[in-house]
Amino acid sequence: MLRHVIIFNALSVILVASIIIVEPGPKYPPTKGEVWPKPQQQIKRDTYYKLRPLAFNFTVSGETCHILKSAINRYYNVIRGLHRIAWNHIKKHLKHTPKHTNVTDVNFQGSIKELQIKIRSPCEEHPQMDMDEVYNLNVSAVSTLSSDSIWGALRGMETFVQLLYLSDDYKAVFINATDIVDYPRYPHRGLLIDTSRHYISVSNILKTLDAMEMNKMNVLHWHIVDDQSFPYQSEKFPQLSAQGAYTPSMIYTKNNINHIVNYARDRGIRVLPEFDVPGHTRSWGVAYPKILTKCYQLDELIGLGPMDPSKNITYKLIGELFQEIQQLFPEKYFHVGGDEVELSCWESNPEILMFMRDNNMTKTSDLHAYFMNKIIPLLGENSKPIVWQEVFDEGVPLRDAIVQVWKSEDYNTLVQILKAGHKLIYSASWYLDHLQSGGDWIDYYKVDPRQMIPSFHAKVNLDDIVGGEACMWGEVVDDRNIQSRVWPRTSAVAEKLWSPELQHHRYGYYSYNPPQDVFHRLEEHSCRMNRRGVYAQPPNGPGFCVTE
Amino acid sequence: MLRHVIIFNALSVILVASIIIVEPGPKYPPTKGEVWPKPQQQIKRDTYYKLRPLAFNFTVSGETCHILKSAINRYYNVIRGLHRIAWNHIKKHLKHTPKHTNVTDVNFQGSIKELQIKIRSPCEEHPQMDMDEVYNLNVSAVSTLSSDSIWGALRGMETFVQLLYLSDDYKAVFINATDIVDYPRYPHRGLLIDTSRHYISVSNILKTLDAMEMNKMNVLHWHIVDDQSFPYQSEKFPQLSAQGAYTPSMIYTKNNINHIVNYARDRGIRVLPEFDVPGHTRSWGVAYPKILTKCYQLDELIGLGPMDPSKNITYKLIGELFQEIQQLFPEKYFHVGGDEVELSCWESNPEILMFMRDNNMTKTSDLHAYFMNKIIPLLGENSKPIVWQEVFDEGVPLRDAIVQVWKSEDYNTLVQILKAGHKLIYSASWYLDHLQSGGDWIDYYKVDPRQMIPSFHAKVNLDDIVGGEACMWGEVVDDRNIQSRVWPRTSAVAEKLWSPELQHHRYGYYSYNPPQDVFHRLEEHSCRMNRRGVYAQPPNGPGFCVTE
Repeated sequence: MLRHVIIFNALSVILVASIIIVEPGPKYPPTKGEVWPKPQQQIKRDTYYKLRPLAFNFTVSGETCHILKSAINRYYNVIRGLHRIAWNHIKKHLKHTPKHTNVTDVNFQGSIKELQIKIRSPCEEHPQMDMDEVYNLNVSAVSTLSSDSIWGALRGMETFVQLLYLSDDYKAVFINATDIVDYPRYPHRGLLIDTSRHYISVSNILKTLDAMEMNKMNVLHWHIVDDQSFPYQSEKFPQLSAQGAYTPSMIYTKNNINHIVNYARDRGIRVLPEFDVPGHTRSWGVAYPKILTKCYQLDELIGLGPMDPSKNITYKLIGELFQEIQQLFPEKYFHVGGDEVELSCWESNPEILMFMRDNNMTKTSDLHAYFMNKIIPLLGENSKPIVWQEVFDEGVPLRDAIVQVWKSEDYNTLVQILKAGHKLIYSASWYLDHLQSGGDWIDYYKVDPRQMIPSFHAKVNLDDIVGGEACMWGEVVDDRNIQSRVWPRTSAVAEKLWSPELQHHRYGYYSYNPPQDVFHRLEEHSCRMNRRGVYAQPPNGPGFCVTE
Repeated sequence: MLRHVIIFNALSVILVASIIIVEPGPKYPPTKGEVWPKPQQQIKRDTYYKLRPLAFNFTVSGETCHILKSAINRYYNVIRGLHRIAWNHIKKHLKHTPKHTNVTDVNFQGSIKELQIKIRSPCEEHPQMDMDEVYNLNVSAVSTLSSDSIWGALRGMETFVQLLYLSDDYKAVFINATDIVDYPRYPHRGLLIDTSRHYISVSNILKTLDAMEMNKMNVLHWHIVDDQSFPYQSEKFPQLSAQGAYTPSMIYTKNNINHIVNYARDRGIRVLPEFDVPGHTRSWGVAYPKILTKCYQLDELIGLGPMDPSKNITYKLIGELFQEIQQLFPEKYFHVGGDEVELSCWESNPEILMFMRDNNMTKTSDLHAYFMNKIIPLLGENSKPIVWQEVFDEGVPLRDAIVQVWKSEDYNTLVQILKAGHKLIYSASWYLDHLQSGGDWIDYYKVDPRQMIPSFHAKVNLDDIVGGEACMWGEVVDDRNIQSRVWPRTSAVAEKLWSPELQHHRYGYYSYNPPQDVFHRLEEHSCRMNRRGVYAQPPNGPGFCVTE
């Protein structure tokens, strides 16, 4: 049943009925000490070292700061965790363990003593778009990690611990001599979480940030409120969550948000807030029904729709709320949504129609443009907007907004957005709420947004595709299943946005399968996340993880 | 994005563009104190009682036994857990809580004092096919639960705690005056787990049994070994798991199995072992390669295939192993598999062909029949076989075996099996490894195996469809995600196999949606499982659970 098979001789299919041979054991045995996402340049040697936690140190030879110190503590813990597995195996078979197992192996080079970390510039306070994530790593008895920025150092430390692996008997921790030069291909590598359809606990959001760090992702796009609930606790408008949250305790306080933002910063992750307007705002209206539009059908009031763009109080509330939120998120970008606006509700409302006539608007999309043009300046000069694709599609003038593509998997839309001079974040192929029976990360892995643009569109600037996001809409996930739903599927997106371009994939959208090593590396990476407390699900079929 | 909508006026679609109205809050607000699966007969009154854990007792007025005593302890804990939620809410708002909230409500009847449990016959030691699960429950200040058997009492106690619900302010636990007469429609209500593709820890199997009890399911079909790994630790053949398990610790010892079987018995659940032969046995061959068939392609050995039916050692090993296993499982049925046998491997092997010629067999399916005919008597007189559908399809004579249907969702196959005089277990529509993006329990809920048989086949005995099983094949689930993958999707199957037939569903296979109350009840039931420690995923879209 669903058995996975190896067909030995493809040719034989033509000659006689082929025989399906199944091998016992995991479908894709995990690699040992391979890095996810794959580094840009890596030379790995056969020589290797043993790491003994008590005889190993991280040392700092350049700039330092709180972020680096907390990372050093964190990665000591990762190393100790891996070593505990080894120690458990030693204890279990203590009698049978010969000492000095590796004496006879010519490749064995003794113990690794330290990782010297050298950051050449003072630490920045917060990660941001276009942050510098370049690092150099050399692994030998005295290893070195160097970077211009704290962010590069964080990425390099993650790589260092991923190079560690358990010996075949699980009794020792090894690392191979390795040289790495590494940097991301796309500057914006994000994961969207939705805390309105289901509330996600703060501890689960922190766990998500742990997993993002393991995948070198750098943007948590926090779709914090939506139609169903308003869990953001505003100081200025406390009734928004008091009445609009699912329960009075299913909220995010100022302290919660500070904690999340700082925790993310320590891992080189930006937290990008989204307050989606003017649609997807039904929960705002529990406390403030007047800011929503009344929708009519055959002269009868049938309910509340998107925000009412004809009323000043709408803009007043949004403006004051945005200002408060900007204090909490040290982030230059602000996602104002703009998707799926129910224009036909506006069309049904006599007062809105009157307002349109008074302002010389002929179509409701003009009204959408009017609304967005009033909203975006409310962000102030230091903040830049990100909008969902529709806002561009509907012809709303957008100046320097970044457009997030979620509906179109074809390149025409992308080219139009780029030609209009916008930067672009791609998500359309990476909706995690669309499920398949297993292995659907493979489809994610086939997509590379810049490769989607055919070369006859040479005039567009591919660098304006700044990255992408995997989107975990919250309809059918909550604290109970979000981790295993998101990971390792999102790891596929993380690697596509970080690692070297696969040449043969150009125009090969949805045609080429990932190279074989990707399957084996993803097995190791899933177990690695599992060992570090993230409940990543099995990526590829039969197999197992060795954990504590 | 995937937003779930209420369209108010369906007619208006024709007249003008319809407006999508979204309401804030959960998509399907949960019911309060509704039972899952729905009882056969239930009268629920508006009058209600408060349950105070310290002032409430389970009392026994009929037969008693260890199983009943342990159930009473278990359900005290469930009640305490529910009350802790109430207590937490009282503490949080202590200042504002008026005393004697319900004094003015004419429906409020004071406290419920006890549930008197009366079992009329001595407890059976083990659950079995056709076990008696009938019970009567009357809820009032002094409530009564009566049944002929311990199994009926267990089902009734589960129903009793499911009738409890939290008040609207979550500060009290209530129960309505209710009369219930209840019994299952199908005697065999199972869940298959596969511990070969991924190892499932003992504690997770126990948790699965907890969840099954909450859904009144009574068979854990344990597909314990398969091609990939052999986690069953045999006393007679220890090398099977020593070499065939994923790791030496990913095994089930005799003690583990005893623990699981006893834990299941205490919950009225049979544990049905499956040792699938002659295919799906590659992991047996790690230690005993000689019992497997060598497969050839163009005169070249390409690997090992199904068991070698020409060798006596094959039957000797199986016979001795089956005997050992039967000691561990106090269960009259034994699943011997028989699915997906790679007949073309047999056909490729010269020795097998010789053996067939010597025994006057012309087709490899004759050889399959020969094999099954040798295997089934090895079970002895006290054990009855269950086989997968292919064994029947291939014309293997089967006497009194139960046939499990997994390939055919059409009624013709079912009718053939029934006409041949076999009992039947249905699984084809209930493969939990086939995923959809959410709400796929709805498709499970549309299926009722007995209703699949058109009435012009009046001669078949519908009672021979003894039940069904949801099948959780293990390719892409392990300890990390099995609970949220299985629950509450399997709850849909549980209700179809227990609750009254839905009349309008006859011939309505895949056409009728479940009645609305089912959506709301499943919300409550998922949260109930969540509160009792089972990580059931959200069934229906936006919503929330109130837990400790």
